Amino acid sequence: MPSASQPTHPADRLLNAIDARRAPVCVGLDPVLNRLPNAVAPDAEPIERLRTFCFGVLRAVADHVPCVKPQAACFERYRKNGRGVAVLNEVIAEAKRLGMEVILDAKRGDIGVTAEHYAAMAFGEGADSDTADWITINSYLGADGITPFLKPGRGAFALVRTSNPGGDALQSQTLASGGTVADTVAAMVREIGEPSIGERGYSALGAVVGATKPEDAARLRDAMPRQLFLVPGYGAQGGGAKDILPCFHDDGTGAVINASRSVIYAFEPNDEDWMKGVERAARTMIDDIRAALATD
Amino acid sequence: MPSASQPTHPADRLLNAIDARRAPVCVGLDPVLNRLPNAVAPDAEPIERLRTFCFGVLRAVADHVPCVKPQAACFERYRKNGRGVAVLNEVIAEAKRLGMEVILDAKRGDIGVTAEHYAAMAFGEGADSDTADWITINSYLGADGITPFLKPGRGAFALVRTSNPGGDALQSQTLASGGTVADTVAAMVREIGEPSIGERGYSALGAVVGATKPEDAARLRDAMPRQLFLVPGYGAQGGGAKDILPCFHDDGTGAVINASRSVIYAFEPNDEDWMKGVERAARTMIDDIRAALATD
Repeated sequence: MPSASQPTHPADRLLNAIDARRAPVCVGLDPVLNRLPNAVAPDAEPIERLRTFCFGVLRAVADHVPCVKPQAACFERYRKNGRGVAVLNEVIAEAKRLGMEVILDAKRGDIGVTAEHYAAMAFGEGADSDTADWITINSYLGADGITPFLKPGRGAFALVRTSNPGGDALQSQTLASGGTVADTVAAMVREIGEPSIGERGYSALGAVVGATKPEDAARLRDAMPRQLFLVPGYGAQGGGAKDILPCFHDDGTGAVINASRSVIYAFEPNDEDWMKGVERAARTMIDDIRAALATD
Repeated sequence: MPSASQPTHPADRLLNAIDARRAPVCVGLDPVLNRLPNAVAPDAEPIERLRTFCFGVLRAVADHVPCVKPQAACFERYRKNGRGVAVLNEVIAEAKRLGMEVILDAKRGDIGVTAEHYAAMAFGEGADSDTADWITINSYLGADGITPFLKPGRGAFALVRTSNPGGDALQSQTLASGGTVADTVAAMVREIGEPSIGERGYSALGAVVGATKPEDAARLRDAMPRQLFLVPGYGAQGGGAKDILPCFHDDGTGAVINASRSVIYAFEPNDEDWMKGVERAARTMIDDIRAALATD
C-alpha cells in the first residue's frame, strides 16, 4: 500500500512490489459481460456486475500479484452518465488499497496540452487514492506525446512492439538507415527515458513488448537496457513461459509479464468458487515463470 | 439533424453537411478552464463551466460549421464520478441536435475486442443520440486496430501525418523499400478503407494529415485518393489557408480543415459578447479557406 516509506520513483516501487511477491507478473483486468461467472450479481446492471467481478478478481490475486492492469476500454464502453469511468476509478482505488501497483491500460497518444489532460485523467492532480501508477501510451506522435506522462512518482509504458498479428504491417518494416520501425521507436523511448532513471537502474518510461515476438524481444532488450518491459500476450494470446525469457536481463529483472483472460476467466460459468480458479491460475502462471527464470 | 432521409454512409453525410454550409471546416472543442470567458458560469464547478462554454460555442458556430471535434482528453481529465465523460456525451448530443456532425477526437489505438469496446464508447450500441459520427484513431497497431471502428454509419480518421514537431522522429523516417513511415501507414489506410467507399467516392476510413506539412500532404493526397483528410494545425498551430490546399482534390472536396484554439478562444477574458467573437472567427476562417480554394 502506498505510504511515506515507499520509494517515489515508479520503477523502484514496481520492482520492490515484484520482489516482495517473487512474481514479475501483472494481471490484466479486461472484464466483459458475457464471460462473467453466473454467480456475480446476476440481477445487477452490467457495469455493476463488472465492478463486483473486478473486486473479486482483485481479492483473489492480491496476495500473489504485485500489480494489475485495468483495460480502460472495458469500462469506458459503459458511457451512460460516465458510470464506466467511475467504476474504473473504484477498481483502481481497491487495487491500491490491497497493496498492488496499478497500470492503466489506456494506450493514449496525443501531444502537448492534450497529453497533459490525459496524464491528469490517469494520475489525477493531487493525492487522489483512485489514480494509476502507470499508464500505457502510444508513441507514434513522438516525444511530445510521451514526456507529459512522466510525472513525479508516475510512469508510462510506451508501445514499441505489440503482440497482435497486424502489428507487423508497420512495426516490422525495415528502415533505410537500418533496423525496423519498432527499433526506431525503441531508440526514441530509450533516449526520452534517460533522464528519469530510478535507484534500481530502470526508467520511469518503460516499453510494451509483446510475448509473441521472442526474437524481437531479445534485440529490444539490448536496445532499451533501462526500460522495464510490460509484456502482453502471455497465456490466451499464445506466448509461453520460454517465450518471455528474452524480455528479462540476466539478473531476472526488467520485465513484467501480463496475463489477462487466461487468469481472470479461469473458471466455468456456473462455478460458485470462481475466485479460487482465478487465484489458482495466477499462482500457476507465477510458478511457470519462476521455473522458466530458474532454468534459464 | 440526423433523420431517415440522410445518407447512412458517414462520408456521404459529412460531405453533404460541408456542401450545405459551403465550408469544409471543423471546429475543435478543446475547452480548458484557464481560457474560459469570465462571464461563463463563474461560480460553477470547473466541469460545469466547461459544459456551459461548449454549449455556447456550439450555438455560436452551428449556422456556419458542418462539424465539430470534441477533444476527449479535455473532458476525461474531470474524472470524479465520471462527470467529465457525462458532460462530453451531453456536448455531443447538443452538437447533433444543432445539426452538426461530430468527430470524437480520442485517438484510440488498441486491437480486436478492445477496439470493439472503444467503438462502443464512441458510437454506443443502439440509436443513442449522444454518440459521435466519427472517431480519430491511432494506426500503429495495424489493421486489427482500425477495422473494428468501421461500423455501419460511422467512420474513423486514422493518424497518418501529425502536425506536431515531434511527429517527424518516427513518421518521416525513410523505409528501405522506399517512402516514409507515414507513407506506409497511408498505404495501409487506403487498403483497409477500400471496401467502405460511399456514393460520393470517399471511404468511411479517413486520415489525419497535419496542415503544417504541405509537401507531405500533396504526396499523401495522391496516395489516399479515397480518404477524407481531417486536417489539424490550422490557425493556432501555424498552418495557413494556402498550406491546406494540397489536402483537397481539384474539385475542392476531400478535406475538412480543423481549427480549435484560434476559433473557440477568439475573445478577451472580460468579453460579455464572447460568442460573437467565436462566431466571427469561425466565419473568417471559412472565408479564408473559400478564398484560397477559389484562387487555387
